[in-house]
Amino acid sequence: MKELKVGIIGATGYGGLELIRFLHNHPEVEHIELFTSSSAGETFSTRFGHLVSIHDKPLNEINVDTLSTFDVVFTSTPSGVTSELLPPLVGVGPKLIDLSGDYRLQDPSSYEKWYKKKPAPLEIIQQSVYGLTEWNEKNIKEASVIANPGCYPTAVLLSILPLIKNELIDPNYLVIDAKSGISGAGIKPSQTTHFSEANENLSIYKINQHQHIPEIEQAIEMFAGAKTNITFNTHLVPMTRGILSTTYAPVHAGVTNKQLTECLIETYRDHPFVRVISEASAVGTNRVKGSNFCDIHVKLDERTNRATIVGVIDNLVKGAAGQAIQNMNVQMNLPQTSGLHVVPLFI
Amino acid sequence: MKELKVGIIGATGYGGLELIRFLHNHPEVEHIELFTSSSAGETFSTRFGHLVSIHDKPLNEINVDTLSTFDVVFTSTPSGVTSELLPPLVGVGPKLIDLSGDYRLQDPSSYEKWYKKKPAPLEIIQQSVYGLTEWNEKNIKEASVIANPGCYPTAVLLSILPLIKNELIDPNYLVIDAKSGISGAGIKPSQTTHFSEANENLSIYKINQHQHIPEIEQAIEMFAGAKTNITFNTHLVPMTRGILSTTYAPVHAGVTNKQLTECLIETYRDHPFVRVISEASAVGTNRVKGSNFCDIHVKLDERTNRATIVGVIDNLVKGAAGQAIQNMNVQMNLPQTSGLHVVPLFI
Amino acid sequence: MKELKVGIIGATGYGGLELIRFLHNHPEVEHIELFTSSSAGETFSTRFGHLVSIHDKPLNEINVDTLSTFDVVFTSTPSGVTSELLPPLVGVGPKLIDLSGDYRLQDPSSYEKWYKKKPAPLEIIQQSVYGLTEWNEKNIKEASVIANPGCYPTAVLLSILPLIKNELIDPNYLVIDAKSGISGAGIKPSQTTHFSEANENLSIYKINQHQHIPEIEQAIEMFAGAKTNITFNTHLVPMTRGILSTTYAPVHAGVTNKQLTECLIETYRDHPFVRVISEASAVGTNRVKGSNFCDIHVKLDERTNRATIVGVIDNLVKGAAGQAIQNMNVQMNLPQTSGLHVVPLFI
Amino acid sequence: MKELKVGIIGATGYGGLELIRFLHNHPEVEHIELFTSSSAGETFSTRFGHLVSIHDKPLNEINVDTLSTFDVVFTSTPSGVTSELLPPLVGVGPKLIDLSGDYRLQDPSSYEKWYKKKPAPLEIIQQSVYGLTEWNEKNIKEASVIANPGCYPTAVLLSILPLIKNELIDPNYLVIDAKSGISGAGIKPSQTTHFSEANENLSIYKINQHQHIPEIEQAIEMFAGAKTNITFNTHLVPMTRGILSTTYAPVHAGVTNKQLTECLIETYRDHPFVRVISEASAVGTNRVKGSNFCDIHVKLDERTNRATIVGVIDNLVKGAAGQAIQNMNVQMNLPQTSGLHVVPLFI
Repeated sequence: MKELKVGIIGATGYGGLELIRFLHNHPEVEHIELFTSSSAGETFSTRFGHLVSIHDKPLNEINVDTLSTFDVVFTSTPSGVTSELLPPLVGVGPKLIDLSGDYRLQDPSSYEKWYKKKPAPLEIIQQSVYGLTEWNEKNIKEASVIANPGCYPTAVLLSILPLIKNELIDPNYLVIDAKSGISGAGIKPSQTTHFSEANENLSIYKINQHQHIPEIEQAIEMFAGAKTNITFNTHLVPMTRGILSTTYAPVHAGVTNKQLTECLIETYRDHPFVRVISEASAVGTNRVKGSNFCDIHVKLDERTNRATIVGVIDNLVKGAAGQAIQNMNVQMNLPQTSGLHVVPLFI
Repeated sequence: MKELKVGIIGATGYGGLELIRFLHNHPEVEHIELFTSSSAGETFSTRFGHLVSIHDKPLNEINVDTLSTFDVVFTSTPSGVTSELLPPLVGVGPKLIDLSGDYRLQDPSSYEKWYKKKPAPLEIIQQSVYGLTEWNEKNIKEASVIANPGCYPTAVLLSILPLIKNELIDPNYLVIDAKSGISGAGIKPSQTTHFSEANENLSIYKINQHQHIPEIEQAIEMFAGAKTNITFNTHLVPMTRGILSTTYAPVHAGVTNKQLTECLIETYRDHPFVRVISEASAVGTNRVKGSNFCDIHVKLDERTNRATIVGVIDNLVKGAAGQAIQNMNVQMNLPQTSGLHVVPLFI
Repeated sequence: MKELKVGIIGATGYGGLELIRFLHNHPEVEHIELFTSSSAGETFSTRFGHLVSIHDKPLNEINVDTLSTFDVVFTSTPSGVTSELLPPLVGVGPKLIDLSGDYRLQDPSSYEKWYKKKPAPLEIIQQSVYGLTEWNEKNIKEASVIANPGCYPTAVLLSILPLIKNELIDPNYLVIDAKSGISGAGIKPSQTTHFSEANENLSIYKINQHQHIPEIEQAIEMFAGAKTNITFNTHLVPMTRGILSTTYAPVHAGVTNKQLTECLIETYRDHPFVRVISEASAVGTNRVKGSNFCDIHVKLDERTNRATIVGVIDNLVKGAAGQAIQNMNVQMNLPQTSGLHVVPLFI
Repeated sequence: MKELKVGIIGATGYGGLELIRFLHNHPEVEHIELFTSSSAGETFSTRFGHLVSIHDKPLNEINVDTLSTFDVVFTSTPSGVTSELLPPLVGVGPKLIDLSGDYRLQDPSSYEKWYKKKPAPLEIIQQSVYGLTEWNEKNIKEASVIANPGCYPTAVLLSILPLIKNELIDPNYLVIDAKSGISGAGIKPSQTTHFSEANENLSIYKINQHQHIPEIEQAIEMFAGAKTNITFNTHLVPMTRGILSTTYAPVHAGVTNKQLTECLIETYRDHPFVRVISEASAVGTNRVKGSNFCDIHVKLDERTNRATIVGVIDNLVKGAAGQAIQNMNVQMNLPQTSGLHVVPLFI
């Protein structure tokens, strides 16, 4: 028994709520405390009724001394917050796992361009490790700061990295059409996420401007060694959870559908959370709902010699809290599946 | 460690799928086998993609000899099936927990009237114990056949039984208006449950004719000692999971709102799955989604001297598979929460 | 051809948008102008993209002189606004149809108690006529101020008034369980109507405290001559449009199901927007979606001698904008169906 | 007044129901009769409750003599039916407008390959005119048989044809990612469209195999003069109505975003149902819901020199019944907007 002491900063967002959901059933987590910059003292379950009898403790004020006694601290805030909030915590004790985007881009000027915010201190960015667990386990194990991947990049990268790395698809004309449930827009109400206007509505947003574009390109270069110039668009789908990304790529001459599929199977043979699905009809966001799975599927169109590559995740789990806990497990020398071994809800 | 061997008959329905979801994370369950009368040999996860890598075993044919070696057998079939299928299994070994309605009504003629089907053998009906865990624990512990309660009766009974038993409300004019998500209609497609027609549609069905009427009246008599003649109607709500029942009752003279609430709190003090919610704004089906909780709330209208009593459950969990496993836990001398200690999804 | 000139104050709400939707296809309406207290000058279709090429004109400032040249002015604002905004317009020219609740309650102290706001001037309240078209046509024709009914009261009253007036049901124990789609909460985003939290959630709100309670009781007394003390609760259903109200009432001795149904048929024989539906399976909010119909159904439970009475409307049409236009038609001596003769969407 | 007599074969599908919805409000349509091969005699509004008091007439048996007296006959059946059913009606009197796919592909062997069904007689195929109204008006006016376009092709073609025809984008690498609401799957229930499994699920289907691929390629060649080899995939979105297609294409050297947008505006200047939307944030399926509009938007990514082209329709209206009536209007020398001038629902 590890009896871990875990803190969450930013628990009042959907990423934070999912951290609570999984950590409360994590066999090695003994103690969970929630921290806030705004609502200290408030009883958490008064605000979030589903946690009555589960987490009735009050929210705590953020305090470095207190936090220094924790084993792990998750920061799950909107972007632009942990760039200031996290540095004082580096090196004081806990492993830090940041779910915001503030530590993902290694180039601060790229962060400024895409996020339109002031970047985090360069020295902390350089210490941070990109937490795409299946592709970066060794570095994650040693890291003190984890930049947990974005939701879209997780679905996209897990599905296409093996095919690029193994030179089966041509990375020069990647078209990535991604679709997300509305929880990806966060907990703060807005006209776009107002039920009557979001329901029964499919829309496209941030055309060519999503901040996950540089994150995906950086990771393709990092893990598959290819410089790319991707086309990436995002759509809002009237459902709460789930991301499905559809990537289109020309295949290299002579490549077969069998080779594509086997490359995926081979890559993820020992990775319990990535499932290569053979039948497209078995691929859907409800097949991973509530779980840490990423389901992937590839299909070659012999008529056009282009491949369709599909990645499916629960955006709040494998795309956020689940992967963050998976990274914690790696750091703490626990089985990756510890506390995450739940069956998808399906319905 | 108990290392229980558990069988499920009727795994290809939503009740069965939920049993699988929870049993795969139950710490005392070692072995799960699925049985079918129709599709033996088929790999289960081919049909239900969310179970890929979780339950890839084939479905087994129903066989009494095989089943006799199990500790517990759940039967989760449409009504009218276990009345014939279950009797040969009685006494051969496993505890039997029936999720269909076939063993709930003690009076076979009432079953015939409301279900319009041939009743189960009287001697088996008489052995069976009604599995409303919080109200029948002692009998459940000894029972070899459990009649797991219906989804609607669970929400209704848990919320109103304490108030009737303690003579705070008048049981002579109970109006119960119940609403359910569409998963309650089962896995078989129909025009009523066809997405385009069920979506954005609220409807009423089986007016005055729902088979849960005699079940609720029988349980009120059994547990609260009152003969009743309830008004009970059911509505189909465009969501997948969840039941919310709203019961209206006159209160006895002089009864206060405080007394009503305290009666509920007192009754369920030691019952981890029933939560008395003080603020109506914190009551909703998403507060229990995916979990075994039943949330209840009561409010006296001093203007009319009538009480509104609300019960909320996930129909597939506390209203089916979750309560069935809770009953198994009681029978096996395990903590009631074993394998069921999940946090509601909320979103 | 009437060539009516129509103004809408409060067009940026859902009621206002529905007024625009119908008035743009109204054969006798020549000219539509929108007025606002806050966003004058803004092009309306920039804010509401569905109106591109339909209503590209800017919003106008509210001005009594300008408005005095109109034939009809609809006010569709949140409650508490027209109590001040409307009086200067009374008598200056246009017929006034108020969709807010400010002129519905004849007793200002009741308004203060239930709305917790300052009531409108008594002399204007006394001039105003309750616009439940099917029950008040003669007065509506003469009125200069119409208090358009609330959404819930419309569904409830149309379904139960005939049975009370004809003394078939006992008005002393009316339990009304009403359910509404989320558009009823208006256009302003909030946590309750945030997609991720409203979706897949059924909840109850304003228990015993809904401001439609005195409105329903007042109308029962006005049109059916009975003083009542109703129980009335409201639920939020995860769909955009639609209200279904289920009313429970004891029937008077000897009353049959046939009598109940025939009473409804007889009452509404010449009313094109109220349909008495004989089969409960054909009753649902999608059967009236987008249209001005109110579908009603009654069923006697001979076991308990209580009736279940169902009323179904599109809350934004018959429950708001549609009924308002129906009232305009009456005032303008047009057929009631003018501009409202649309077929429900169904899906 | 034209006083048209119109027949619908296949009224019991969603396309047929939408034809009824619009034709009942069409000012020039005097008489509507429904025909069926299976359920003659049945009262239509008994089956479809939303049509009570609107279309209470029985379904008629299909009979050539009877149908020969009609001005227009719409056939709205599943594919593979009108290939046999329609030929006897050709030339006997009415204009024929076929909403199935049986007459769209000019090459019968292509039909056989993609539909896996026996093609219609070649001489009828050759007489038929592709009913993409905005691009084929002259031929439609003269045609006796109209092949009404598929839902996906309508959204895709209207948005990309101008850019290909005017040589602004390169047609050699078109990637079309299309998404549809579930009504596109038709009225027949199935596991895929079962509410509990379709709700909260986003999936991909018919990868590289959708029968609309040859239809789109044929139309690009016909109207824009380019031979193409498109990549086209389709996704099922948990909503009832709506199609949004996202097309990705390289732009020719030097082309600007302004040129792309102006090309669209110029092309559709005199076409009331195609709206070029300048802000992506105003593009969404709910902006066209229930209406015959096709909204289009284009955005150049200067980083990659590729364009994103979006087309949005209500699949049942502009993608089926609405466009069919628009074609009828052209054939009957009526304004294209006759009977179709409805405002989108938005919510």
